[in-house]
Amino acid sequence: MGGIDDSVLTGLREAGARFEREELADLLAGIAAAPPAPPGHDPLAWTALVAPRAPAALRRRLAELVAGFGAGDDGLGRTGTDPDRLAALRAELSRRGLDGVLVPRGDEHQGETVPRRAERLAWLTGFTGSAGMAVVLAARAALFVDGRYTLQAAGEVDAALIEVVPLMETPPEAWLERHLAAGARIGFDPWLHTEDEAGRLRRSAAKAGAELVALDGNPVDAIWIGQPPPPIAPVVAHPAAYAGEGSAEKRRRVRAVLAEAGADALLLTRPDALAWLLNIRGADVPFTPLALGFAIARVGGPVTLFMDRRKFVPGLDEWLGPEVAVEAPAALGPALDALGAGRARVLADPATAPAWAFARLGAAGARLVEGPDPTLRMKARKNPVELAGMRAAHRRDGAAMARFLAWLAREAPKGEITEIAAARAIEAERAKDPLFRGPSFATIAGAGPNGAIVHYRVSERSNRRLDPGTPFLVDSGGQYLDATTDVTRTIAVGAPTDEMRARFTRVLKGHIALATLVFPEGTLGAQIDAVARQFLWQAGLDFEHGTGHGVGCYLGVHEGPQSISKLYRKAPIEEGMVVSDEPGSYKAGAYGIRIENLLAVRAIEGIPGAERSMLGFEVLTLVPVDLALIERELLAPAEVAWLNAYHARVRSEVGPLLDPETAAWLARATRPI
Amino acid sequence: MGGIDDSVLTGLREAGARFEREELADLLAGIAAAPPAPPGHDPLAWTALVAPRAPAALRRRLAELVAGFGAGDDGLGRTGTDPDRLAALRAELSRRGLDGVLVPRGDEHQGETVPRRAERLAWLTGFTGSAGMAVVLAARAALFVDGRYTLQAAGEVDAALIEVVPLMETPPEAWLERHLAAGARIGFDPWLHTEDEAGRLRRSAAKAGAELVALDGNPVDAIWIGQPPPPIAPVVAHPAAYAGEGSAEKRRRVRAVLAEAGADALLLTRPDALAWLLNIRGADVPFTPLALGFAIARVGGPVTLFMDRRKFVPGLDEWLGPEVAVEAPAALGPALDALGAGRARVLADPATAPAWAFARLGAAGARLVEGPDPTLRMKARKNPVELAGMRAAHRRDGAAMARFLAWLAREAPKGEITEIAAARAIEAERAKDPLFRGPSFATIAGAGPNGAIVHYRVSERSNRRLDPGTPFLVDSGGQYLDATTDVTRTIAVGAPTDEMRARFTRVLKGHIALATLVFPEGTLGAQIDAVARQFLWQAGLDFEHGTGHGVGCYLGVHEGPQSISKLYRKAPIEEGMVVSDEPGSYKAGAYGIRIENLLAVRAIEGIPGAERSMLGFEVLTLVPVDLALIERELLAPAEVAWLNAYHARVRSEVGPLLDPETAAWLARATRPI
Repeated sequence: MGGIDDSVLTGLREAGARFEREELADLLAGIAAAPPAPPGHDPLAWTALVAPRAPAALRRRLAELVAGFGAGDDGLGRTGTDPDRLAALRAELSRRGLDGVLVPRGDEHQGETVPRRAERLAWLTGFTGSAGMAVVLAARAALFVDGRYTLQAAGEVDAALIEVVPLMETPPEAWLERHLAAGARIGFDPWLHTEDEAGRLRRSAAKAGAELVALDGNPVDAIWIGQPPPPIAPVVAHPAAYAGEGSAEKRRRVRAVLAEAGADALLLTRPDALAWLLNIRGADVPFTPLALGFAIARVGGPVTLFMDRRKFVPGLDEWLGPEVAVEAPAALGPALDALGAGRARVLADPATAPAWAFARLGAAGARLVEGPDPTLRMKARKNPVELAGMRAAHRRDGAAMARFLAWLAREAPKGEITEIAAARAIEAERAKDPLFRGPSFATIAGAGPNGAIVHYRVSERSNRRLDPGTPFLVDSGGQYLDATTDVTRTIAVGAPTDEMRARFTRVLKGHIALATLVFPEGTLGAQIDAVARQFLWQAGLDFEHGTGHGVGCYLGVHEGPQSISKLYRKAPIEEGMVVSDEPGSYKAGAYGIRIENLLAVRAIEGIPGAERSMLGFEVLTLVPVDLALIERELLAPAEVAWLNAYHARVRSEVGPLLDPETAAWLARATRPI
Repeated sequence: MGGIDDSVLTGLREAGARFEREELADLLAGIAAAPPAPPGHDPLAWTALVAPRAPAALRRRLAELVAGFGAGDDGLGRTGTDPDRLAALRAELSRRGLDGVLVPRGDEHQGETVPRRAERLAWLTGFTGSAGMAVVLAARAALFVDGRYTLQAAGEVDAALIEVVPLMETPPEAWLERHLAAGARIGFDPWLHTEDEAGRLRRSAAKAGAELVALDGNPVDAIWIGQPPPPIAPVVAHPAAYAGEGSAEKRRRVRAVLAEAGADALLLTRPDALAWLLNIRGADVPFTPLALGFAIARVGGPVTLFMDRRKFVPGLDEWLGPEVAVEAPAALGPALDALGAGRARVLADPATAPAWAFARLGAAGARLVEGPDPTLRMKARKNPVELAGMRAAHRRDGAAMARFLAWLAREAPKGEITEIAAARAIEAERAKDPLFRGPSFATIAGAGPNGAIVHYRVSERSNRRLDPGTPFLVDSGGQYLDATTDVTRTIAVGAPTDEMRARFTRVLKGHIALATLVFPEGTLGAQIDAVARQFLWQAGLDFEHGTGHGVGCYLGVHEGPQSISKLYRKAPIEEGMVVSDEPGSYKAGAYGIRIENLLAVRAIEGIPGAERSMLGFEVLTLVPVDLALIERELLAPAEVAWLNAYHARVRSEVGPLLDPETAAWLARATRPI
């Protein structure tokens, strides 16, 4: 790269880091492809990957170089659908003798947040949502999105070029069955689809007499000029004080599960599984501290981690220890071949691992043991140290939210605050915490009608003022070294109407009903989801999202395997899991209401006469519920008692962390009703 | 048969019915293989199949002949496991070169009640439950039963010969995977397993390196001396006054669904589907008015019914009409071959149709469209005439129950009533109704500890007196020409303990919570099952059965596709469906509690501000809930109001049908609390 002059290379050499020019250029391009450091973070932390001992001036010079890469147009800045890109893709398909191609939003790891390099769907269609898939045929193209994103997709995508299809009405499988011509060859990148998904799509294509062809090389990559390289962000140790269990012990538990399942090896393709198993954290994607990579765990031996070593901060090799071998990502294929050659029984999860891995293992002769990745369940059940971290972080997070809400209570009536200003204020309050590592997702700050858009993401264009008379919905969370938080509150701005209060109170009743539910071990989330909806149902209302998702510990704000929603998932709610409790009510074009706390699942002991092992919840989130939106007459005495006890707890646990002015606000906000 | 002398043949000829001796013997053997007429029924109704105009003396002679067949030992009278039968089966396997065989309880139609001929599992193992499967290998045998039947199976089966395996812990699939030797050949009768089930079992066997072999001819049939022939019981018209919709219109609706699904034909293998579609009822199995048979419906043409014509009462051909062709059951195979030869697209339900049919269609070249049998959903949604019949029958059923409960209230304190006497008393009260056609299932009458056995079936051996101090659980139902009923009440005998009252009241609270639930269209049963359990959960209790099952209209007392239980079923609860609401609590070795009403699903209109189409329930059952078991302090005001309103309704709807003494009892039993 032209920007790297000799003085940089010389400076690095003097700081003990020897680089070829091209080698440095590659490294800096990878660093530029990682998300920027969040507020409150050292924006130059990544320089440790280049030269840990570089003097300040050299660091600044490196930052300029990285910024230069970032400024280079990677094509993701454009809004709307670019017809030239669609045309280029079709030309590429034609070159390869294909009649169409699938372009999913996912990456090789099926993560919810993906690196810029993997934003193929956004680059191609203009759709920026976190889930979706396009099917591009010669004469037509369709974008499949779920209920959260139908409105957003319609606004972002040129309907003349790409039809937006709500997948609840027409799943891609049904569409393919209907629209593929017999004999058509449709390409797909087997790295980007799970084995299960590829199987479903393949069967649908077959019903139409068409064929799904696994491609060697993604056709979007072939035409995307300026596509970023894989991200390079520091991978750091996640110490025992936060993790609560050493990696060696976790690996021992995984080996025991493999032995029990009769498997010789486990293929790990989810970066959150790697992070948990190896007690490491990264920064390759926004909002979740993931270090992208793969791993193979063996029943009788070491773990091999397939990860770009350039991401390791100094000392990480020692942290991983001698029983974790590190190889380049490209070595994964040959490693699977070796497993196959040894006729190994390999446990791989068809719901999360790419079709590519199954094909490779199968071709190599491995004996596949299909089953859920056992680390997901282990990770979901937090240990006592993680739960202690969750509790501690929620007290501090509650203090940040209290300062934000007190500020909002002061400022909102003036009618000047915008959604963007509110979102920034929350992040700024959280960033005061030394353990804060950034927001856990893009803050949803929806005033009035924007609050009714479930996955609203404020932009300069959509930004609204918080108008008196409409509630303000704010859903935000933080990544802390000791926990991940996620909290939604709906705040009255001015006087709410009776309808708003009635809806809010019904949402609150459902929230309380779930938080206080006692249920037997083995219960699935889909079995208790209605508990949070029942009072809305009474009023002819419902909400089009799940009631609760799993939450990681300084990991993904959305994690499985558990889920409390209408969708059936086989994984039961188990002790130690953390889930959200977030019923809502959305009046399209008017306002939205949601109340979300995180809950830790705990055993309920000591019920007289109990015949079953029962579970219940401990509330983690400590943030006041806006009393101005409550219609007390609609609450049962037990619900009033719950709210008053919760608010007393918020006051006693968060109050001591606050300045006197905020503490006074908190005392008022949590007064008994 | 020696019993048929010339005078019988002559007498029949004089009555206009000409038979060869052997022909008559076959017919009478089939009649003997059908269940006896239930109480209140004409025990000689079947003579219409022999000679409708036979004089009384000849009818009696025919009845003697049929009774002679019945007295012939069919081997089902024996209790316990007969080692000789197991040995004979193993010899048969060895002759066929098999290492094992599957012996399921199901018949060709996967019905809950099966004809005597299909009681292969009971004949082989001694286990008489309504669900289960044995696997017989050369050196070991296992019987898989669900939670309802583990105790019963242990009592009925010789553990030294057959291991009883609770299938919730070890499903047959897992057992096969573990216990089959590589290379083993395990036979199964493809008529007796659904396509889905056969697929699962086949995959499990394959994992062990074994093979599941579809057999031509059931090996149990080959060794069962005295196995009854297929039953022959009268098939009669189910008139429009009860059915509410003509068969021609039902067939038109089925053709429309086929056209929509792109199918040329539909294979019908469930006798309840035939009964609904063709408006016919039979008597081939106990408790459910089924005429066993198969059918093929064609998108552009007639329905072919594959059924033994000898079952038709005079006039049934005219009732079926010219658009229903009737062929012998043996013609089904060639008919499937013909569909295949025409490359027809055939809709068949892999969850209910036998693997045999899929294999035959596939081999013949048919294009299979796999999907749920559409008639099941149509049948489940009752039309207004059926709902009116359900309401009317429930008033009369309520009157019968009131008479029974009033009798019980008078007699039980004397300490002499037994479970068998109580069960007979209920049936006798129901049999007074001219539309009564028999019990809808074997009455469960469980005193004290027997009440804790969920699917208890009283026998002379287990029969208990209703002892003061223990509640008496009675679950019974009737088949009426206009409806099917199913009701459970738990009655205090003597003074109940606080624990009994607390448990009963929690069961009642859950019962009321479900009965009053409002929920959106599209809701699945598994999503609302917890509503009925929540108050038991609070006390550390639960129950090991579903909360609710579908109920037919003068058809199966258990019908799908809907179900309210922990088990996930894709079919939503829809308007017009009838479901049971029957939470319970069972204290092993002490007593059982269950409260069951039938509910009809109805649209809930007129909720102010409603944004969704909502559903709720109408209570059909009209039987008092025993006030002596209610702990009023545990009821919320709305629950008390529900109970009082329900009892007022029972009084006003059932009271007028009662004699003064019973009416006076009912007034006391339904007094407001």
